[in-house]
Amino acid sequence: MSRTVIRGGLVITASDEMAADILVEGEQIAAVAGARTGLGERWAAEADHVVDAGGHYVIPGGVDGHTHMEMPFGGTFASDTFETGTRAAAWGGTTTIIDFAIQTVGRSLREGLDAWHAKAEGRCAVDYGFHMILSDVGDQSLKEMDALVGEGVTSFKMFMAYPGVFYSDDGRILRAMQQAAGNGALTMMHAENGIAIDVLVQQALESGRTDPKYHGKVRHPLLEAEATHRAIQLSRVAGAPLYVVHVSAAEAVAELTQARDAGLTVFGETCPQYLFLTVDELARPEFEGAKYVCSTPLRPEEHQESLWRALRTNDLSVVSTDHCPFCFTSQKELGLGDFSKIPNGMPGVENRIDLLHQAVVEGRIGRRRWVELASTTPARMFGLHPRKGTIAPGADADIVVYDPHAEQVLSAETHHMNVDYNPYEGKRLTGKVRTVLSRGKVVVDSGEYLGRAGHGRFLERSTCQYLI
Amino acid sequence: MSRTVIRGGLVITASDEMAADILVEGEQIAAVAGARTGLGERWAAEADHVVDAGGHYVIPGGVDGHTHMEMPFGGTFASDTFETGTRAAAWGGTTTIIDFAIQTVGRSLREGLDAWHAKAEGRCAVDYGFHMILSDVGDQSLKEMDALVGEGVTSFKMFMAYPGVFYSDDGRILRAMQQAAGNGALTMMHAENGIAIDVLVQQALESGRTDPKYHGKVRHPLLEAEATHRAIQLSRVAGAPLYVVHVSAAEAVAELTQARDAGLTVFGETCPQYLFLTVDELARPEFEGAKYVCSTPLRPEEHQESLWRALRTNDLSVVSTDHCPFCFTSQKELGLGDFSKIPNGMPGVENRIDLLHQAVVEGRIGRRRWVELASTTPARMFGLHPRKGTIAPGADADIVVYDPHAEQVLSAETHHMNVDYNPYEGKRLTGKVRTVLSRGKVVVDSGEYLGRAGHGRFLERSTCQYLI
Amino acid sequence: MSRTVIRGGLVITASDEMAADILVEGEQIAAVAGARTGLGERWAAEADHVVDAGGHYVIPGGVDGHTHMEMPFGGTFASDTFETGTRAAAWGGTTTIIDFAIQTVGRSLREGLDAWHAKAEGRCAVDYGFHMILSDVGDQSLKEMDALVGEGVTSFKMFMAYPGVFYSDDGRILRAMQQAAGNGALTMMHAENGIAIDVLVQQALESGRTDPKYHGKVRHPLLEAEATHRAIQLSRVAGAPLYVVHVSAAEAVAELTQARDAGLTVFGETCPQYLFLTVDELARPEFEGAKYVCSTPLRPEEHQESLWRALRTNDLSVVSTDHCPFCFTSQKELGLGDFSKIPNGMPGVENRIDLLHQAVVEGRIGRRRWVELASTTPARMFGLHPRKGTIAPGADADIVVYDPHAEQVLSAETHHMNVDYNPYEGKRLTGKVRTVLSRGKVVVDSGEYLGRAGHGRFLERSTCQYLI
Amino acid sequence: MSRTVIRGGLVITASDEMAADILVEGEQIAAVAGARTGLGERWAAEADHVVDAGGHYVIPGGVDGHTHMEMPFGGTFASDTFETGTRAAAWGGTTTIIDFAIQTVGRSLREGLDAWHAKAEGRCAVDYGFHMILSDVGDQSLKEMDALVGEGVTSFKMFMAYPGVFYSDDGRILRAMQQAAGNGALTMMHAENGIAIDVLVQQALESGRTDPKYHGKVRHPLLEAEATHRAIQLSRVAGAPLYVVHVSAAEAVAELTQARDAGLTVFGETCPQYLFLTVDELARPEFEGAKYVCSTPLRPEEHQESLWRALRTNDLSVVSTDHCPFCFTSQKELGLGDFSKIPNGMPGVENRIDLLHQAVVEGRIGRRRWVELASTTPARMFGLHPRKGTIAPGADADIVVYDPHAEQVLSAETHHMNVDYNPYEGKRLTGKVRTVLSRGKVVVDSGEYLGRAGHGRFLERSTCQYLI
Repeated sequence: MSRTVIRGGLVITASDEMAADILVEGEQIAAVAGARTGLGERWAAEADHVVDAGGHYVIPGGVDGHTHMEMPFGGTFASDTFETGTRAAAWGGTTTIIDFAIQTVGRSLREGLDAWHAKAEGRCAVDYGFHMILSDVGDQSLKEMDALVGEGVTSFKMFMAYPGVFYSDDGRILRAMQQAAGNGALTMMHAENGIAIDVLVQQALESGRTDPKYHGKVRHPLLEAEATHRAIQLSRVAGAPLYVVHVSAAEAVAELTQARDAGLTVFGETCPQYLFLTVDELARPEFEGAKYVCSTPLRPEEHQESLWRALRTNDLSVVSTDHCPFCFTSQKELGLGDFSKIPNGMPGVENRIDLLHQAVVEGRIGRRRWVELASTTPARMFGLHPRKGTIAPGADADIVVYDPHAEQVLSAETHHMNVDYNPYEGKRLTGKVRTVLSRGKVVVDSGEYLGRAGHGRFLERSTCQYLI
Repeated sequence: MSRTVIRGGLVITASDEMAADILVEGEQIAAVAGARTGLGERWAAEADHVVDAGGHYVIPGGVDGHTHMEMPFGGTFASDTFETGTRAAAWGGTTTIIDFAIQTVGRSLREGLDAWHAKAEGRCAVDYGFHMILSDVGDQSLKEMDALVGEGVTSFKMFMAYPGVFYSDDGRILRAMQQAAGNGALTMMHAENGIAIDVLVQQALESGRTDPKYHGKVRHPLLEAEATHRAIQLSRVAGAPLYVVHVSAAEAVAELTQARDAGLTVFGETCPQYLFLTVDELARPEFEGAKYVCSTPLRPEEHQESLWRALRTNDLSVVSTDHCPFCFTSQKELGLGDFSKIPNGMPGVENRIDLLHQAVVEGRIGRRRWVELASTTPARMFGLHPRKGTIAPGADADIVVYDPHAEQVLSAETHHMNVDYNPYEGKRLTGKVRTVLSRGKVVVDSGEYLGRAGHGRFLERSTCQYLI
Repeated sequence: MSRTVIRGGLVITASDEMAADILVEGEQIAAVAGARTGLGERWAAEADHVVDAGGHYVIPGGVDGHTHMEMPFGGTFASDTFETGTRAAAWGGTTTIIDFAIQTVGRSLREGLDAWHAKAEGRCAVDYGFHMILSDVGDQSLKEMDALVGEGVTSFKMFMAYPGVFYSDDGRILRAMQQAAGNGALTMMHAENGIAIDVLVQQALESGRTDPKYHGKVRHPLLEAEATHRAIQLSRVAGAPLYVVHVSAAEAVAELTQARDAGLTVFGETCPQYLFLTVDELARPEFEGAKYVCSTPLRPEEHQESLWRALRTNDLSVVSTDHCPFCFTSQKELGLGDFSKIPNGMPGVENRIDLLHQAVVEGRIGRRRWVELASTTPARMFGLHPRKGTIAPGADADIVVYDPHAEQVLSAETHHMNVDYNPYEGKRLTGKVRTVLSRGKVVVDSGEYLGRAGHGRFLERSTCQYLI
Repeated sequence: MSRTVIRGGLVITASDEMAADILVEGEQIAAVAGARTGLGERWAAEADHVVDAGGHYVIPGGVDGHTHMEMPFGGTFASDTFETGTRAAAWGGTTTIIDFAIQTVGRSLREGLDAWHAKAEGRCAVDYGFHMILSDVGDQSLKEMDALVGEGVTSFKMFMAYPGVFYSDDGRILRAMQQAAGNGALTMMHAENGIAIDVLVQQALESGRTDPKYHGKVRHPLLEAEATHRAIQLSRVAGAPLYVVHVSAAEAVAELTQARDAGLTVFGETCPQYLFLTVDELARPEFEGAKYVCSTPLRPEEHQESLWRALRTNDLSVVSTDHCPFCFTSQKELGLGDFSKIPNGMPGVENRIDLLHQAVVEGRIGRRRWVELASTTPARMFGLHPRKGTIAPGADADIVVYDPHAEQVLSAETHHMNVDYNPYEGKRLTGKVRTVLSRGKVVVDSGEYLGRAGHGRFLERSTCQYLI
């Protein structure tokens, strides 16, 4: 069994900061010792590999609870495969992703899940799990939910948007939530009133408002807030927990806050794009706004304060990426002259940890909260703790050595995601991933990729760990 | 340097649970190793002392942020000295207390602080710190605040109740908060409208309503909520953080919730008596209600759900005891025939960890939240983290081995607090402290007290760690 | 031109109470004179008819903004025709009804409106207007809306319940609201999430819960609140006013309160059945619960306080009846063994004024508010003021002489509605209509009906008068 | 008995608008007749006096519930006497004022009331009533309250501001409210936390911030909101109604909204200065800001939307003036170099009706709401309805013929208030009072004053008419 020692760093978890050395044995963390005890030195003497973390942070690898590799959408596929996408994740300090297997309308969950297993198996650089998208709730798929929970697919996403594609009506949502109330699954919700939005889309197109910027107008903040409220009420009727994905509007945050104040088991996720970018990007000339088309959409700047506030008070508890990249050339361009045909999605899996560290630098959140939002809470939310999401004896040795002082400039020229643009092109950040271990193996070190496709394993997840 | 190993337990911190062994060197935690790594066995072989924690929880020692040893009140003194009180704390798994030094009206803070140092020094079984009670805010005492912050007394309590005794008017409160905004201190507030309450007290007494039960009627929940709201608004005007002590009324919780929803740095504490006892106790016959006289008062049962909800959503983030015991005989009896003369206060420092564990047993909170409420958050709130409040390399070895299955019955006959009654007399609990280490030294083990007066040291505290 | 004088009563309007005499000339109120001026005496000397109102209230005739005469529902028709229903209204002191013309799916609004004109014309005892139910929103019907507004049909109702019958999805609702934003029409909403409710209905029936009492369980209060919130948000997106009909759940009231606090032009109506009856009625034995099946359903008693509070603070501003009677025998019985087949609806048009007066007697509302809720506000809400809804020179002489001290017992044996039961059977009330004038003509007097079918005329209404 | 007929106007009350003629007999309104009935013509033929109101509004005379004639403040006296002030009121269409008699500390209420009776009697141009200011709540003054209620002084004002002058502490407030709960009186509250404000005042002065503009900074909106909340909670404890005077801060409005949503009998008043002027005026050069010093202070512009919203939703229900004029020369100048010495107060009694009509012109409120805010509601609030506040048979003939199309420019050169500036100097308004009747007597007509000192009589008021 190989032994690695990580020495001299400041180990940061969701609740602690300590000058400590870490002993890794095989794939797991064996022990953590105070820096001054001499234990680390002793361990290093017997180790196969010693990582010097002096002057660096040592944090648990990131858990990105929301990615869409190779996702079919609008007649094309997200441009990152599980191979390229998880490699980019590793580069960015994320050592676990949870992607979405998709049920095709009229088909079984099983068939969808099998297809996604086939896409991912043997190709991933880091560990991965699956949520399941319910596209066709019915007697059969409800029964299958129980089976999937037993196999470690313990969360099910539905869409209140995209009528005719992924959309579930309120009756189907209610039935799936009732099933989840019984089997312990977590319901994830894309909360936008797609039926109403599609009317506004149609009206915009008919009146010649076809530019990407209208994407940000038709997907009204109140229609996100409305759907969020509706999802909450349905979850109360069903007696089931709820997790709202990619919250972007202040009014939607307010619904979550109100629900949580009432003691409901309702959770919210946001994404870096909503924290760092605004709707103004959608108005970029030369169709470049298309790069910023995702749903929920980017919002006016004044929404951001609400998101940051909620991240501090835990009304939002997870920052995922909703990584779903489409190349500007040939993919985003499908929507030239009709914004509704632009594939919805943005890259991000590689930049999340760094962007959130920037929030630490700017004083918006503390270091422990950074780790909690990016790693610990998603691990617990999706049933992976204590295996993932922390640095503690017994946990998987998914560890990032992070240089808090390094400076970098985000750019498509240097990023590793398989997409021809970076939405944060030119943005200067302080802080950078230096070394990444995935289950004890160094996969990235000082600008070199040392991992391999197939190292990453499928994770059978337990149910959400926030329900008691 | 002595070495102790704690083996085989389930180590629980605010964010992690792990089957792990702990190596203690001298007064601090040196390392934590996974149970299956063999490291613990190796450490044990070289240790001076091995504690078997098999089947037990291993948690950080409790931090009780609110005690009043030997406090002068109503012509008598709280019946626990620093010696008896800290010994009882140790018995109950609490290894740090923060007591309140008191400024006498017309005198300096220094004089008050010196007096409390004199009372505590050389007498404590476990470590201790001081908050300072401001009884006389003025130019001089405001200046002294800065000095005290420099000496590790970083929190200052004021009273909106008790006119003529501890009461500060809103102008004094505002000035002290402004000073705190500059020096980083935390303002702690006893939030009850004492001016209005005293009118109701007077009216009750004049109309012959003199029994202890009227204590619960005159201290109206709305007058707690009002003062809570006022303290929040004053803190906003001053730009300073606020910590509201012993919150008991649902309406006061609602004020905190609203403030926190708005992103304000406002914190709330409650106490076990509000979670487990109700105003009905005050109506006990034969003046026994006097045992339950404390302020804020016990509330009707329906208030408890709000408190539990708030403990889950972090609108309340600390559970302290407000330990301030007065013997029924001769002390509480001072108020025979006039409830307003009953010394206000209840014992509790020994029972807090157990009562909160009962909440775990009953499914109200999880195990990590138990640790967080009882130890980690108060440590951070009052500037003691990471020295106190966690189990991590480098932390003080304040450790409790807790038997989650042991059964006990609370009783004055068996407790160690120096007071002739226990407010929970006869209450059956599941879970019990077995072994307690204070800075590496076993002070309680299996029903035997092994500590000594003077082991406990004064803690210079940094400022509140929740301000970023 | 005939002249009538009403002498000696206490004239009550929404804002005034005065001991005054009223001179009616032809169909309108000509003048109001103080009781002591001698004018009334002089008028009486020259009058064709003198009504002695000594010891009585003199109030404007009631305006019932929500009735369904001869409404087709569930394979049968509401049992009151325009003839019997408006006669019963007159007996109960209501001199204006606004009924609902219905668009058939696939047909034009015009066709529906014409059909309702045909039903009502020449048959009504009192004046009447029409709202239009939109069952099939599309390009054509949107255009027709403008035309109808021009003809005095200025309010359009949609249903978020009853999928497959009256149901409009959120896109259709949004489009109709946008149209209303342009033409000044008022959108009326049946706010219940019918899609989710139908799942619960199906589940209830499949599990053998077929009794009427399950009607009250499956139509969950949160599904009323949810739809209310959704309708409000859609109206905000459209920039159009909203009127929510038959509000029954406290949680729905809370949504209205929040909307109105934000300054939105959102209005709420409730009905006597929600104020005076509870869900317990649905559990009556021998299928008698069916008599109380209406939607929204009756609620548990604790909801009533919210309704009364909202009626005082104007968060609810109208009390209509939703009069839609079905005989127990042969009609309600259609749902024997399947509560979902029970025709939804209850009688009430005759009892509204008396039940609201009972609220005056019991101190829940004042006398002027009684008049305002029952007459003035609905008149303004639906564009009938000052012709209807007040006692003032120039207004139609729709006047009720009300005996505030008379006692009566509600009963199917004595009521004049064409239905074989009274939901308030046996209820004792203080207060009773004595004399009713419709456009200057005495139609009811001291227990005698003096009106005739065809006296009532169609009212072309202006748009809602609360929009500035 | 003299007879006057007012012909051809649009009569507007709080609930009605009608083309009608009014017959006045002696001091009261005898009858109202429709314009087309011929009755007016007949009356005119027999009348002593005919007022042509063609093309004009005919509204009830204004009721200004908050004036301070000859008020002693800061070593000087408000510059309008009861003679000059009530004459100016008449010019402005206000036919009733309610002024404040003041209890001197250490003296009886009776003595204060007698003094004010002496000032007013025989000098007033229009009718007047008194509220009583409680400066010294104690056993004796509490008893006197009951007596005063019996004499028609049914409202009592206390100050949470002005320590050492009018200030009452929370205990005194509570006691007075308890007394009011028993005798039906209405408690009026100046809600600002004066204790905290005085700290900020002192700090401002000590640091050289002595200009009038600092008046607006030290009287922090949150300290108005705080006091408002506190007054509400005290009123709940006492079980008494509450009326908050001169609300200016959005945060204070929010407290009222929340209280009213909870069904509490809490009322709010604002004044034209808060609706039409902002804190910017206080920064005028050459000490001119002093003209705008009043308390509560003018606020930043963004507060105004809240006030207008609340006037629409009735969370604020009265617009009074807080008329308390001090001349710029010699009076306001007392505060040169020390803003805290500027007498607090502004003129306004003459301009209220016109400024509120401007809000009608600008679409902020409707015409009936104009009448309600300015006349009907204050009449009911302070127990004067139906004698004052409406146009109805039996009411006092306090009537204003208002020209809605006349243009005017407000100016000290043309106003009739005894003060050397007008805060709205140069403001153009549409609408102007033409003719004013007080108890049947024309006191102002077409720019001529026809009244006389002593015409106005003291009004014994009943208790607040909004308590049921």
